[in-house]
Amino acid sequence: MNKRVITLGEIMMRLSTPGYERFVNASNFNAVYGGAEANVAVSLANWGVSAAHVTAFPSNDLGKAATQYLRFAGVDTSHIFFEEGRMGLYFLENGAMQRSSKIIYDRFDSVFANFDADKVDWKAIFEGADWFHWTGITPAISASAAKLCQDAVKAAKKQGVKISGDINYRRNLWQYGKQPLDIMPELIEQTDLIIAGLTDFENCMGIYESDFVTACKKAQEQYPSIKYVSTTYRESISASHNKLMGVLWNGKELLESKSYDMTHIVDRVGGGDAYMAGLIYGLLGADDQEALEFAVAASVLKHSIPGDANFVTVDEVMQLVKGENVGKLLR
Amino acid sequence: MNKRVITLGEIMMRLSTPGYERFVNASNFNAVYGGAEANVAVSLANWGVSAAHVTAFPSNDLGKAATQYLRFAGVDTSHIFFEEGRMGLYFLENGAMQRSSKIIYDRFDSVFANFDADKVDWKAIFEGADWFHWTGITPAISASAAKLCQDAVKAAKKQGVKISGDINYRRNLWQYGKQPLDIMPELIEQTDLIIAGLTDFENCMGIYESDFVTACKKAQEQYPSIKYVSTTYRESISASHNKLMGVLWNGKELLESKSYDMTHIVDRVGGGDAYMAGLIYGLLGADDQEALEFAVAASVLKHSIPGDANFVTVDEVMQLVKGENVGKLLR
Amino acid sequence: MNKRVITLGEIMMRLSTPGYERFVNASNFNAVYGGAEANVAVSLANWGVSAAHVTAFPSNDLGKAATQYLRFAGVDTSHIFFEEGRMGLYFLENGAMQRSSKIIYDRFDSVFANFDADKVDWKAIFEGADWFHWTGITPAISASAAKLCQDAVKAAKKQGVKISGDINYRRNLWQYGKQPLDIMPELIEQTDLIIAGLTDFENCMGIYESDFVTACKKAQEQYPSIKYVSTTYRESISASHNKLMGVLWNGKELLESKSYDMTHIVDRVGGGDAYMAGLIYGLLGADDQEALEFAVAASVLKHSIPGDANFVTVDEVMQLVKGENVGKLLR
Amino acid sequence: MNKRVITLGEIMMRLSTPGYERFVNASNFNAVYGGAEANVAVSLANWGVSAAHVTAFPSNDLGKAATQYLRFAGVDTSHIFFEEGRMGLYFLENGAMQRSSKIIYDRFDSVFANFDADKVDWKAIFEGADWFHWTGITPAISASAAKLCQDAVKAAKKQGVKISGDINYRRNLWQYGKQPLDIMPELIEQTDLIIAGLTDFENCMGIYESDFVTACKKAQEQYPSIKYVSTTYRESISASHNKLMGVLWNGKELLESKSYDMTHIVDRVGGGDAYMAGLIYGLLGADDQEALEFAVAASVLKHSIPGDANFVTVDEVMQLVKGENVGKLLR
Amino acid sequence: MNKRVITLGEIMMRLSTPGYERFVNASNFNAVYGGAEANVAVSLANWGVSAAHVTAFPSNDLGKAATQYLRFAGVDTSHIFFEEGRMGLYFLENGAMQRSSKIIYDRFDSVFANFDADKVDWKAIFEGADWFHWTGITPAISASAAKLCQDAVKAAKKQGVKISGDINYRRNLWQYGKQPLDIMPELIEQTDLIIAGLTDFENCMGIYESDFVTACKKAQEQYPSIKYVSTTYRESISASHNKLMGVLWNGKELLESKSYDMTHIVDRVGGGDAYMAGLIYGLLGADDQEALEFAVAASVLKHSIPGDANFVTVDEVMQLVKGENVGKLLR
Amino acid sequence: MNKRVITLGEIMMRLSTPGYERFVNASNFNAVYGGAEANVAVSLANWGVSAAHVTAFPSNDLGKAATQYLRFAGVDTSHIFFEEGRMGLYFLENGAMQRSSKIIYDRFDSVFANFDADKVDWKAIFEGADWFHWTGITPAISASAAKLCQDAVKAAKKQGVKISGDINYRRNLWQYGKQPLDIMPELIEQTDLIIAGLTDFENCMGIYESDFVTACKKAQEQYPSIKYVSTTYRESISASHNKLMGVLWNGKELLESKSYDMTHIVDRVGGGDAYMAGLIYGLLGADDQEALEFAVAASVLKHSIPGDANFVTVDEVMQLVKGENVGKLLR
Repeated sequence: MNKRVITLGEIMMRLSTPGYERFVNASNFNAVYGGAEANVAVSLANWGVSAAHVTAFPSNDLGKAATQYLRFAGVDTSHIFFEEGRMGLYFLENGAMQRSSKIIYDRFDSVFANFDADKVDWKAIFEGADWFHWTGITPAISASAAKLCQDAVKAAKKQGVKISGDINYRRNLWQYGKQPLDIMPELIEQTDLIIAGLTDFENCMGIYESDFVTACKKAQEQYPSIKYVSTTYRESISASHNKLMGVLWNGKELLESKSYDMTHIVDRVGGGDAYMAGLIYGLLGADDQEALEFAVAASVLKHSIPGDANFVTVDEVMQLVKGENVGKLLR
Repeated sequence: MNKRVITLGEIMMRLSTPGYERFVNASNFNAVYGGAEANVAVSLANWGVSAAHVTAFPSNDLGKAATQYLRFAGVDTSHIFFEEGRMGLYFLENGAMQRSSKIIYDRFDSVFANFDADKVDWKAIFEGADWFHWTGITPAISASAAKLCQDAVKAAKKQGVKISGDINYRRNLWQYGKQPLDIMPELIEQTDLIIAGLTDFENCMGIYESDFVTACKKAQEQYPSIKYVSTTYRESISASHNKLMGVLWNGKELLESKSYDMTHIVDRVGGGDAYMAGLIYGLLGADDQEALEFAVAASVLKHSIPGDANFVTVDEVMQLVKGENVGKLLR
Repeated sequence: MNKRVITLGEIMMRLSTPGYERFVNASNFNAVYGGAEANVAVSLANWGVSAAHVTAFPSNDLGKAATQYLRFAGVDTSHIFFEEGRMGLYFLENGAMQRSSKIIYDRFDSVFANFDADKVDWKAIFEGADWFHWTGITPAISASAAKLCQDAVKAAKKQGVKISGDINYRRNLWQYGKQPLDIMPELIEQTDLIIAGLTDFENCMGIYESDFVTACKKAQEQYPSIKYVSTTYRESISASHNKLMGVLWNGKELLESKSYDMTHIVDRVGGGDAYMAGLIYGLLGADDQEALEFAVAASVLKHSIPGDANFVTVDEVMQLVKGENVGKLLR
Repeated sequence: MNKRVITLGEIMMRLSTPGYERFVNASNFNAVYGGAEANVAVSLANWGVSAAHVTAFPSNDLGKAATQYLRFAGVDTSHIFFEEGRMGLYFLENGAMQRSSKIIYDRFDSVFANFDADKVDWKAIFEGADWFHWTGITPAISASAAKLCQDAVKAAKKQGVKISGDINYRRNLWQYGKQPLDIMPELIEQTDLIIAGLTDFENCMGIYESDFVTACKKAQEQYPSIKYVSTTYRESISASHNKLMGVLWNGKELLESKSYDMTHIVDRVGGGDAYMAGLIYGLLGADDQEALEFAVAASVLKHSIPGDANFVTVDEVMQLVKGENVGKLLR
Repeated sequence: MNKRVITLGEIMMRLSTPGYERFVNASNFNAVYGGAEANVAVSLANWGVSAAHVTAFPSNDLGKAATQYLRFAGVDTSHIFFEEGRMGLYFLENGAMQRSSKIIYDRFDSVFANFDADKVDWKAIFEGADWFHWTGITPAISASAAKLCQDAVKAAKKQGVKISGDINYRRNLWQYGKQPLDIMPELIEQTDLIIAGLTDFENCMGIYESDFVTACKKAQEQYPSIKYVSTTYRESISASHNKLMGVLWNGKELLESKSYDMTHIVDRVGGGDAYMAGLIYGLLGADDQEALEFAVAASVLKHSIPGDANFVTVDEVMQLVKGENVGKLLR
Repeated sequence: MNKRVITLGEIMMRLSTPGYERFVNASNFNAVYGGAEANVAVSLANWGVSAAHVTAFPSNDLGKAATQYLRFAGVDTSHIFFEEGRMGLYFLENGAMQRSSKIIYDRFDSVFANFDADKVDWKAIFEGADWFHWTGITPAISASAAKLCQDAVKAAKKQGVKISGDINYRRNLWQYGKQPLDIMPELIEQTDLIIAGLTDFENCMGIYESDFVTACKKAQEQYPSIKYVSTTYRESISASHNKLMGVLWNGKELLESKSYDMTHIVDRVGGGDAYMAGLIYGLLGADDQEALEFAVAASVLKHSIPGDANFVTVDEVMQLVKGENVGKLLR
């Protein structure tokens, strides 16, 4: 697909216990690199979209390894900055059955959190870009990361680039003195597509509604630039068995996707990012319902793949959308 | 929890095939240490109870490794004896789908089986103890192990320590010339809480009943010290999918726990010991129904963890009891 | 069982990604050796049948390793030929959830494909044999492999050996200039038992029917030697969850097996070969319905075992047939 | 050995690449816990000394795992503090041949670095202690860590506990505004045994000498409490081949140990800590030359063991000292 | 380094047994991608040179994985062709002690061997290039591969691009009807720098000399374009212990490098390619002796790294050249 | 080689810690099957000799796995007995550098130790055999094992089969009431070739000499059937570096082999059995010096291979004897 998408955000080293080992018993960890926005870039690159990720890495071998991972995934790494400092990390313990998965974050004081927003030439980066994607994690990390996000959104808007934002409110972040309502509204009011659930509406937009459509309508009133609001509904029967569907408000009606029964889940981390990427991919070239179905099917397949990233092809997603070749042995 | 529990029993090295490999194809084995009673001690220690395990190990590196494992798990190892000889072993092949799990025991002639019961100063051990736990495996191993168990029960009773016994009848043991009915009644008649199913009632107490409550009542008539009888009901749909619930007879009524659907089982060995530990923990500080629910929920979580031991927190068990955060991704 | 079965066919090295890794992320591969017909021989040898496999291997360490694997499995390897050349390979990516399993074949131009059929002394090989098994893969590989299969079938027929053929039509093979209908009919008309679904009937026998029994009857009219036709019905709910049953047409009636719900599938490759082996084993010593039930139960258990081969005992299969000890913990 | 030793210092999670993988290629990491002072405690506990380690851990599963590791190793963990925050980490890439090993530290802003020194009741901790060990890493981490070390040394001195300090100057630390010469002299002047090379003398004591004995004499003049000065000489022929010897200045003469040729090194991290532990162990019960030989032999054996810690027995060290059973197959 | 290098050649999947397992015992294989020329490109890319590799891959997931590996390594993959067919493979068994390493090639009939040379637009590829590198493996594979190499060399020469060729005579290749002397002279006579030992001189240039310098002089007489001839001398004391040095004839004198003692070799495959890359890198920016020393040191470091590729930095190579930080622990 | 060799002895499961892990740290074990005499059979089978091993296994999956391993290795398993009971085990910790390897045996009370010697029909077994091999381990295990060995030696002698015995005195065995001198002389006096060092002469033959040749001469006087006496000299510089040579007294002169420097040892267990097998192989078809050189070279190569068994070819051994292709990269 001949489109260019820019993503911005922190990438962490993810250290996960093998199999279903608990943290206290683990004597080794699998290591991959991931982050909500970079995972979107990886999906898109994998689907043939020209995707560039903007971030800052430590100028050591870990930063180098993360960069090489992004290149492996086909993401343009020419807008990555390298600075003295540490890489954010997170530790993941995979749940099973009724036992939940657990994440221990260790991301404070990272190179990205401390990165000087003024070093980025957004004008150059958005040259030729069609879409920019940010999430609510970035403005939650630090004042400088918030500024980075603000600069990016402003520049994208100015250059006519479409903007998506995954609101993704995380209470444990936001420790640098600002509250979501201090920062998020300004970002949202320049954004075309947001992913938001009711909690996100409350915390980041001050919209308190118990009905999603009502909330969407209020959001559009307050932030007229919003064209789409989407969210997923996940039912957790157990860590190994979830149900998933997505909805998309396009200003006129609430589209609903098929609902998927996901048993034997391999790795649910990155499932939301796969959905986001699917939505961007779909809206860049298909109609609203098709885009939504593509997004949910992409997310379902992500749950079958170890790691943060969704290494599936467009063809595989489309087959799931159509219900073809589901769970077969393809020779 | 400011309580002290003493457990007694053999600990074996468990050698399990990785993944779903069968014995004939295995070229390596995962090794952990476990035993029905020690698994109870590990659970309790993990939940903040002061737990000491009494056993005998070979005075070689394997005995040392087993001791270090118990210390790792927080169990007091100051009452462990080291003697020349071998450590008992068992080989485990994990089942999947309709294929059952298989255990090959190699525990005869172990240091524990040959251990001289007179070396133990039970009086000192029970100093300050609140609870003593034994199982029907110990008296089944050898005459000296049976004596060890008898001495312990007698001393505990004398010192006013509460006693639980998991009857756990195993036909393949009992090869040293005695029958269960020669030994078990004397042990049971000093015990406060027993875990027993109908087969256990028959083989170890001579009570032949087809109804659990009737059996419990008869047991209490014959053994007035018994205050509680409990058992679990497990339905094996496949090796990967079981249903589990527990019942507790408290002399007045039969309490029933919630029933859990356990799909995607990781490792069911130790599930009963987790239940036992849960019951002891619960009865040391909660009411009967709460204790029962805690026990079953603890057992369910055990099935999600590789190895014999149940490395879950009180908080995790309580959340499952309450149905909170079941199978989620906790950040 | 005091019977001798001869199988013929190519054996490939199977390289599968560990866990649920995708090809693009795999940095190592598990290696086993397998092939549709050899898998049948391995099952039978494992069940005490004297089984010999006829094939050609490269005269290098990989051919040696494959031979040693067959000896490990108890298969007579005295009729294996060693020639300069390459071993066929296939790469397997295990599916999970809605994501399908994928196979990349790399078997062209192998030692087996190029093997000179005239080197084999079939008369000697069939001395004392009770059964010969071939599949439609062999005649699809190359002209010389087709001749090999023709020679074998002819010789077996002549020596009064019972013959089974798994039609197993594969469109991607058949690249050497012949069409299935050029070759298969002659092979089928000497065969006693065939495994064939409707697609096989169409492509390899020219029988276009939408009803299995009608197709079977037509097949028997055209090929009077056929005494049995069998096939399995597999419903793929996901890669991790299938349903399976088998049917057997014995010239008089269509027998149906129990249907099995297979959740938590470990490895489905070789499931059909396990069924085939079960049918041969059953028909060598039991009645038709028993044979069918044995075949399906054997196939179900195969799905719980990593690798191509079905390392289960007759006793384990029989217990599943009877619904005993299903998914238990056997001590 | 009926002695009690207290150690103080940070413990980090060590994440090392498997085999000889480089950081940029690593997809998993082996995880152990270690720190210069805790490694000493582990050695001593392993040799039967009562050893307690004082440190601060995050109050999460990683802090719990580190605590369990210390218990596994037999170290008294009752003086460990748990606080909100992060655990220090380091990444290790094992060298081979001419390629050096590499460490990337990620220890800033850890729970230990931020720990409030006033929370520790040193008087209680030193009750019954014979020896206290600190290193120059602790005062280099942060102002509060420096205070922690100062408090400890002062309290130990006051209670008549023998004190050792491994000067261990690390230029990359000391980033909180103080220089080594601001802090170290006061610590050294209360210490009985120091490990120091010429660089340590220069940076931490202001003694600029090119001869070790001259430096030792000067040190004793300036710091009369010093009774012993020791250091090791390591010749790095390659990452896989080093030569090692130790020297001990006891105020009268410079004792020299045997020199060891260490080829086929498995893991050199912790070699210095094993030496330190050996020296403490030796001086607690043997003469100076014996202590020195014990220390070097212990250090040599450490190089053969993966991980930070030296899991060897006193007997194994003594055999190496005597040249008995070196590199044999012991049945 | 602001230079652009183009390499051409086949890339194979390398499947190596883990540890020191022999082929017959291996149940899994480590997989990397490599080829003599691509290994050069990877080294150069890793050192900051703009390197592009020209090759053909199968249009399946293995070709995709190989492409992603090259991107990971920083190599420009925009000139890779994807076609139906198979990827060449080789199996590697790592030697140890006196036991040699073994390679089983399985590369015939690959996509690269069958690739249509006319599809490549060399003119475009050499736009802005400074150097082109080929090896004697390519013309040995097939007639079309030979043409590919001839076209490339001709185009490079025409566009004034410097050319290097690693003669690398392999008797087992050259099976398509041509002899080295039919093809190689024409390629060599356009090449600036060749790697050739006495066997290469004989088989590929018809120069039979027992002295390297005499052979070099003769070569320059016959092929005046040759400016440099280089080779390495390797003494194999065992599979784990080699000595290595390099020599470089620059038309005037024979420069000799330092000689390195390589004990504890991790993986010697790719050692020659690392040397070649080092020579190119050196000659692009340093004097002849420096280039030679850089090349040998790079090759030595390669022997410490698992896989075909030499993931070391320029700085690491330079430190070895200078004898600094050899085999240390760098913090 | 058209010869048939019979071996007799116990086979144990060997459980070894991975890499250089110590027992106390091991969380998994590699599993192979081995025994001094079976290792000889495996070597010989691997070299094309018809080798049958006589032993007793438990009638469970472990006995089955051990049998399958022998079949894998090409050993005739038709004379193996299956009985209720346990399989002997041993645990191996691989040494490195100055740290020794350690073995913990757990072999008492095994099926083999308890096996009823009268069940074996030695006459049938020795039909067509050329050589019988026993070791001093078998008579040391139990009275019934001693009888088994005595019966075998007697029958072999009677049927004119050549006999070799590896004296292999182990003090820790011999716990059933007999001393070596009660049993060994009778076995030795029927044996043609013995492997014995000075300790073996003393303990098993009552010959106290400090010179090997003198001891050999005395042995031949006392036991005139002895035609050959051999032993190896191993110098253990470290666990990773040994020197090895062999000597063979043929009644006339003491032949000495080349001496090998073995650095980077992978696994030394089975080195003596590889030597024994080499000697048998050599003496079955070559002259004395050739046989000796073959034996030592075979033993050297064993040290490079993980596991008990020596999976090397005759050709590889011969190349080492000749000093060809030592430690190269063979393509």
